Amino acid sequence: MDYHGRIARLRSAMAKARCDALAVTHLPNVRYLCGFTGSAGVLLLGEKNSFFTDGRYAEQAAKEVVGAKVVIAKGPALIAAAKQAARMKRGRLGVEAEHLSVSAYDAVADVLTKSIRLSATRGIVEGLRTIKEPAEIGRLRAAIELGCDLLPVAHKAIRPGVKEVEVAAKIEFAARKAGAQSMSFETIVASGPRSALPHGVASGAPIPAKGFVVLDYGVILHGYCSDMTRTVHVGRADQEEQDLYRAVLDAQMAAIAACAPGVKLADVDAAARDVLKQAKLDKFFTHSTGHGLGLEIHEPPRVAQGQKEVLQPGMVITIEPGIYQAGKLGIRIEDVVGITETGYELLTAARKELIEI
Amino acid sequence: MDYHGRIARLRSAMAKARCDALAVTHLPNVRYLCGFTGSAGVLLLGEKNSFFTDGRYAEQAAKEVVGAKVVIAKGPALIAAAKQAARMKRGRLGVEAEHLSVSAYDAVADVLTKSIRLSATRGIVEGLRTIKEPAEIGRLRAAIELGCDLLPVAHKAIRPGVKEVEVAAKIEFAARKAGAQSMSFETIVASGPRSALPHGVASGAPIPAKGFVVLDYGVILHGYCSDMTRTVHVGRADQEEQDLYRAVLDAQMAAIAACAPGVKLADVDAAARDVLKQAKLDKFFTHSTGHGLGLEIHEPPRVAQGQKEVLQPGMVITIEPGIYQAGKLGIRIEDVVGITETGYELLTAARKELIEI
Repeated sequence: MDYHGRIARLRSAMAKARCDALAVTHLPNVRYLCGFTGSAGVLLLGEKNSFFTDGRYAEQAAKEVVGAKVVIAKGPALIAAAKQAARMKRGRLGVEAEHLSVSAYDAVADVLTKSIRLSATRGIVEGLRTIKEPAEIGRLRAAIELGCDLLPVAHKAIRPGVKEVEVAAKIEFAARKAGAQSMSFETIVASGPRSALPHGVASGAPIPAKGFVVLDYGVILHGYCSDMTRTVHVGRADQEEQDLYRAVLDAQMAAIAACAPGVKLADVDAAARDVLKQAKLDKFFTHSTGHGLGLEIHEPPRVAQGQKEVLQPGMVITIEPGIYQAGKLGIRIEDVVGITETGYELLTAARKELIEI
Repeated sequence: MDYHGRIARLRSAMAKARCDALAVTHLPNVRYLCGFTGSAGVLLLGEKNSFFTDGRYAEQAAKEVVGAKVVIAKGPALIAAAKQAARMKRGRLGVEAEHLSVSAYDAVADVLTKSIRLSATRGIVEGLRTIKEPAEIGRLRAAIELGCDLLPVAHKAIRPGVKEVEVAAKIEFAARKAGAQSMSFETIVASGPRSALPHGVASGAPIPAKGFVVLDYGVILHGYCSDMTRTVHVGRADQEEQDLYRAVLDAQMAAIAACAPGVKLADVDAAARDVLKQAKLDKFFTHSTGHGLGLEIHEPPRVAQGQKEVLQPGMVITIEPGIYQAGKLGIRIEDVVGITETGYELLTAARKELIEI
């Protein structure tokens, strides 16, 4: 990972935001900039770069942190970082407004002298993170491939009467055995009428004898998140169900086909929404089309209505339209797409025709 | 769960904090107060109580939310909540300063008129949550019992040459099959020299032929978290290792024995620390003694140096001293203790003598 390049790009972004120093508190941003993978620490980019953590992470920080001096703080790492920033004679200390609580902000302000101004920055590091390096694409690819490898496990587990959580357990066990650090979010196995819950995490409900099952899961492998959704049908799907499935798949493929550098994210969303509109199903598509992913399962950019930002080479996004008819059924299909210099690359290789189990 | 009682107690706490309304944004607090288990929503306690979420959660919110009117917002739920609060003619709107980002705070402030003042509250709902209701103790007990039931699975999996992640995978699979919704944090399986990492999450490293293995894991069952640590030894422990283990166990039992209503949390911490001091091992005890747990894996109170708060009946805390010798070994033992009217109840029933595998 190109930590030095990242810090250099961040320094430019800090200069643009007129920050003399930046306290990075959001852990995925900390990891992105210096490699630390633990659960407590603050990276201060000032005259020099320092990483503050507590005693629990002394050994781990010494091993992992690149490009910053490790400081083991007695009290809260953030306060230690603020104290070091306070040694600047004057200037502006940036904080991450989207990730720092009001309470933590006040605590930092209490430490600073009047000659240092606090500056609430937004999305500086996240902006860098939207454009993935080749090494990051490689990690995403590996995580996504592992995700795809788990599909046969899920298909084998799905049987009428089996609890949704048992299906989830088998997917997760196989993921762990294959080296996943954890799942990237709570596994969704939503069967029968529960498939109408867009976030229907696996429950104790038994898989019914007939109906859709939405499988939405991801793994974290070497720090990077995968995310995929497939909807299968237990028993024979009738004509209406097949038509609904086809409409969602057409919408999903239209949105994927719309992906290219320079295309507005709102237009990618519209590509999916328009197909469902033609099928008079758009009112059942109650969420946005997708999101970026990488060190986090949800990262900028958002693939949604009103998003004027354009796709750039190196961006990696999900495309996941769905329809939900309360009390009846739900269908969602999700792939990950990487934006290339000339168009897009579909990173999720699993087949998408309706599978009947 | 006594949602109405909780809201009533919160109303008193709000009055004390001179808040006319409170926007609850921290999801475990939202769940505590109205039962919503999803991942996006804001509860506004004002003249009336309203719960704001988005289209993804329409069906789930309708089923789950108790004591508040469900509103499906078009835009961000927080902004919808702020707009409703803005309809108060005048008054103070409390926000959760420890959980609301600077950025979200600013967005709320933008919506409000000048006659409504924003008030940064701290720990109002968390304060209520420290005292568990009998039904909550019941759920914690069930989660902890499930955690204990997983120990034999772990013991069976631990063999020289087996990867740490494989041990974790087997624990987690058994947890899921037994109904756990997920693990309550990333499973720690830290073997040999890695046991010196207090947060040594399971890695690809193989279990060595000889040495300690720290197992620290928890499950979430019906929303409530368990947390337990046991340290086992692969092969025969030599006399020094046995003595170190004994010292940690003595420290842990001393801290448990110190638990009773009215006792300062700092004194519980000191009880463990003093035992290790007598054995000249206190410098290897690099973290605090414990923490509350419930809907979250880490909740107030903290069992740590300097904590003047006293234990009260209904509090549930972990007691988990440990020692860490970098590059060599680590030992930690953790139980959960519930504070009763007259003393304490040990909720973790698993044995603590050193097990050699």
